[in-house]
Amino acid sequence: MKKSALQKARASYQPKLPIALQGPVKVVEGRPTESVADQAAIKALFPNTYGLPEIRFEKNATPTPGKPINVGVILSGGQAPGGHNVICGIFDGIKKIHRDSRLFGFLMGPSGLVEHKYIELTAPIIDEYRNTGGFDIIGSGRTKLEKVDQFNKGLEILKELGISALVIIGGDDSNTNAAVLAEYYKANNAGVQVIGCPKTIDGDLKNGLIETSFGFDTATKVYSEVIGNIQRDCNSAKKYWHFIKLMGRSASHIALECALQCQPNICLISEEIQERDMNLDDIVRYIGDIVISRAAEGNNFGTVLIPEGLIEFIPEFKRLIGQLNEVLGANKDKVAGMDEAALTQFIFDNLDQQNLAALKKLPANVAKQLMLDRDPHGNVQVSLIETEKLLSGLVADYVANNADFAAAKGKFSPLHHFFGYEGRCADPSNFDADYCYSLGYNAAALINAGVTGYMSSIRNLVKPAVQWIPGGIPITMMMNMERRNAEDKPVIQKALVRLDGAPFLHFAAKRDEWAHNTCYMYPGPIQYFGPAEVCDQPTLTLKYEHKDK
Amino acid sequence: MKKSALQKARASYQPKLPIALQGPVKVVEGRPTESVADQAAIKALFPNTYGLPEIRFEKNATPTPGKPINVGVILSGGQAPGGHNVICGIFDGIKKIHRDSRLFGFLMGPSGLVEHKYIELTAPIIDEYRNTGGFDIIGSGRTKLEKVDQFNKGLEILKELGISALVIIGGDDSNTNAAVLAEYYKANNAGVQVIGCPKTIDGDLKNGLIETSFGFDTATKVYSEVIGNIQRDCNSAKKYWHFIKLMGRSASHIALECALQCQPNICLISEEIQERDMNLDDIVRYIGDIVISRAAEGNNFGTVLIPEGLIEFIPEFKRLIGQLNEVLGANKDKVAGMDEAALTQFIFDNLDQQNLAALKKLPANVAKQLMLDRDPHGNVQVSLIETEKLLSGLVADYVANNADFAAAKGKFSPLHHFFGYEGRCADPSNFDADYCYSLGYNAAALINAGVTGYMSSIRNLVKPAVQWIPGGIPITMMMNMERRNAEDKPVIQKALVRLDGAPFLHFAAKRDEWAHNTCYMYPGPIQYFGPAEVCDQPTLTLKYEHKDK
Repeated sequence: MKKSALQKARASYQPKLPIALQGPVKVVEGRPTESVADQAAIKALFPNTYGLPEIRFEKNATPTPGKPINVGVILSGGQAPGGHNVICGIFDGIKKIHRDSRLFGFLMGPSGLVEHKYIELTAPIIDEYRNTGGFDIIGSGRTKLEKVDQFNKGLEILKELGISALVIIGGDDSNTNAAVLAEYYKANNAGVQVIGCPKTIDGDLKNGLIETSFGFDTATKVYSEVIGNIQRDCNSAKKYWHFIKLMGRSASHIALECALQCQPNICLISEEIQERDMNLDDIVRYIGDIVISRAAEGNNFGTVLIPEGLIEFIPEFKRLIGQLNEVLGANKDKVAGMDEAALTQFIFDNLDQQNLAALKKLPANVAKQLMLDRDPHGNVQVSLIETEKLLSGLVADYVANNADFAAAKGKFSPLHHFFGYEGRCADPSNFDADYCYSLGYNAAALINAGVTGYMSSIRNLVKPAVQWIPGGIPITMMMNMERRNAEDKPVIQKALVRLDGAPFLHFAAKRDEWAHNTCYMYPGPIQYFGPAEVCDQPTLTLKYEHKDK
Repeated sequence: MKKSALQKARASYQPKLPIALQGPVKVVEGRPTESVADQAAIKALFPNTYGLPEIRFEKNATPTPGKPINVGVILSGGQAPGGHNVICGIFDGIKKIHRDSRLFGFLMGPSGLVEHKYIELTAPIIDEYRNTGGFDIIGSGRTKLEKVDQFNKGLEILKELGISALVIIGGDDSNTNAAVLAEYYKANNAGVQVIGCPKTIDGDLKNGLIETSFGFDTATKVYSEVIGNIQRDCNSAKKYWHFIKLMGRSASHIALECALQCQPNICLISEEIQERDMNLDDIVRYIGDIVISRAAEGNNFGTVLIPEGLIEFIPEFKRLIGQLNEVLGANKDKVAGMDEAALTQFIFDNLDQQNLAALKKLPANVAKQLMLDRDPHGNVQVSLIETEKLLSGLVADYVANNADFAAAKGKFSPLHHFFGYEGRCADPSNFDADYCYSLGYNAAALINAGVTGYMSSIRNLVKPAVQWIPGGIPITMMMNMERRNAEDKPVIQKALVRLDGAPFLHFAAKRDEWAHNTCYMYPGPIQYFGPAEVCDQPTLTLKYEHKDK
């Protein structure tokens, strides 16, 4: 692999570890835990791994002799910056425990375990990937590990390789599955521990115990860099409105963090739109009125951040999408062969009046996307809907009919952007490089402590890395029961943006000023070699959430 | 203005100057020059500014006493990283000549001169903008300075402010206009010198004397950062083909530089497509065959870079666009009131058979864009045509009908990106920060030398900044006559990608390997504080073009 100058320079970066992990550790057990909700149901489903204590690692005066461990690792789901450093941390951690320990990587996600596709991750391979972005060291995939025959198939190869612990690096669903797998292997005395690691750029895997998922820091910094650049352009040319959609699935954490970083004129927060029961007209009016008021000041330019999941949070469309998914799901075979016209008619005939009205409100191309572009499960592909163009088109109509806008000789020229893939595989920021390496190193300590069904946890993240607190959280503790595909399932609660949380409240207090004045911030690109105040800052979301620490 | 941590840290960066500009300078005059072509015609149009000598500045042992100068500055056209540093360089340069010198900035481009809109740029203002991206210090605009009444109107305010020299920072057209203005003021003894500065991210303002325009370095580094990130994602997920369109107007310099930096599977070069007379089918076949061959290896992923101006270089569409512009231009009033259907019919009736066939080959939405989305002059808005989607759609059809692709169980899932506004206002790289500051500082030296109609020139750019060679090039020297809007006009030759140039030849020698193997490079974000091999590298285009220096 030919390397860029930055990759070469960055290869020698030594990620910072919490002081407690820098030498021998001792395990400090907390009290038995409960799940966040539905305790009885969760306990019944996880008889062997429910109620375990939280664990904290502390510095130990005397080293305890370790024995060699073989460990397997899986990258699950979408890429997030720092995944390679988690693996490097595991490698260094188990080698520190015993030099004969070995690490195996299963290829292209959980399917690698089931299909027995793997490589041994040796020191030369590991060294190629230190502090780099991407998941290309072993690849990733979206196969869900949730069936007993998958577990048994996986166990065959784990036994064959002498692997006694498996680390699953993934988002909320993958960690849920890690807990199920841990329970299954424990119940069957399989002799394999399972440890999870909190990964997702979306930032929606966090709670009282997991302060943030890795990758969120780097991804939002990349998006903030390009948003900042666009804003500087916008404020120089003074003639475009930039509509910028941001990845992040359901939750609006990414959009909110970028808004805090960049201070755009407008940022929509899906959770607020749902809470306030705003329909599409309300949203268009909110944006349009700001466009008109800026035009009155002679400012025919601005920026709008739009979370990817928006459309599913607008109550009228949530309802429409729900019925579309239901109708098409229930008639999967029937609609499979239909041409566009027939399918459109079928949908029109099967929607209720309210949903039909919502559908007909949409411009033809968006309505078509909703009806026709569906994933293999028959679901609407929300991420493909060009909400940025939908909104700018409706705003154009709104301002065109406004007398104040005409009187101000207002102009409205929108441009559109969607950022997502630009940030998922960026080289990790110092924060993510350190955090990920610590999560992996800490996972090795959890394995050495003999536990299973735990998520690797590093806390106190707003402080310098040496002061971070390593430990483990029983995954069952984060679970509740939710209705998924007509079944009640134990799942880790997804963290949406809290409207009573400090990050949102900070944004809400400032947004009117940002809308009408031009208060753009230009964060610039991630820096790796400069002063700490430039290179080592966590997200503003994390700072505001943990301000009092 | 609230500043980001990076902006604060970056404010204190002291741009590097060529050694020759670090103290008193002496002027070394070369021999009289000739224009690159059409010498007689150019000479006739520029009797007072034609044939001037090239100028080089050298270190002088003894300082010559300077007197105060009032200078005006204009930012013209699209933003490019480093514009602020040109202005800072001018400011510091004229202050060094005499502390009572003053700098005035005309607002929102050349129209500021004509409409007498300006601010004085004082030290506190200048200090706010050192080493920052954007043109927001005084704004920019696209008004063309080409009429005598504009020149006279401008002269009024220049006289009023006691300005004896005007610096125009712009691309090829703006520098052409600077030359015309210089000639006019000289011919009329107006007592105002005019100096140009080579600006454009597109990289198409260069020649034997101007090695590169400023902004190209930073913009291509930003694009290469995000392309690299996408490629790492692509190589991790292994399931998407990313079609990435890149800004750059006509020339493919940006796409080529990004290809050299990132080593994508495919990069289209418009100039080559024109030279080889490739039509749309040829291009689709070229991409499609690589998609098929990669699928046969199990690699259903890849990256394709597409220059913004592509469509105008495909001979069949160049011809079509030409006739469309002609027909609609000649019937401007007639078509103004037509609805979509009538206009479409009018176009169908007025195109020749060959062009009608080319138009009908296109998917409906692209044909519609060509026919209906036109700028105020009636021209096709090439930058709005989604060539990335056009190509991926046609490639999808092509591979769907291929037996090898079916046999390999190939999959083709395209994703689309367009990068442009992300790079035009980025914080300048060290290279652009140094180059721009030197261009501005050097412009002050040219003013002090009493010349007019010169472009500020800094050469030897592949060497460290101290070794750069400052001087001035008569703008007329870069000119030839070209047909524009049915008139022969003197213009600076636009530099397209040379198919016999080292950058293209390097790319051409490697592209087959890059297509079939996966050789992605990940340049990462621009660094400002690290080792020189990471922070201070010029573009590969510049390196290859000046390899033997």
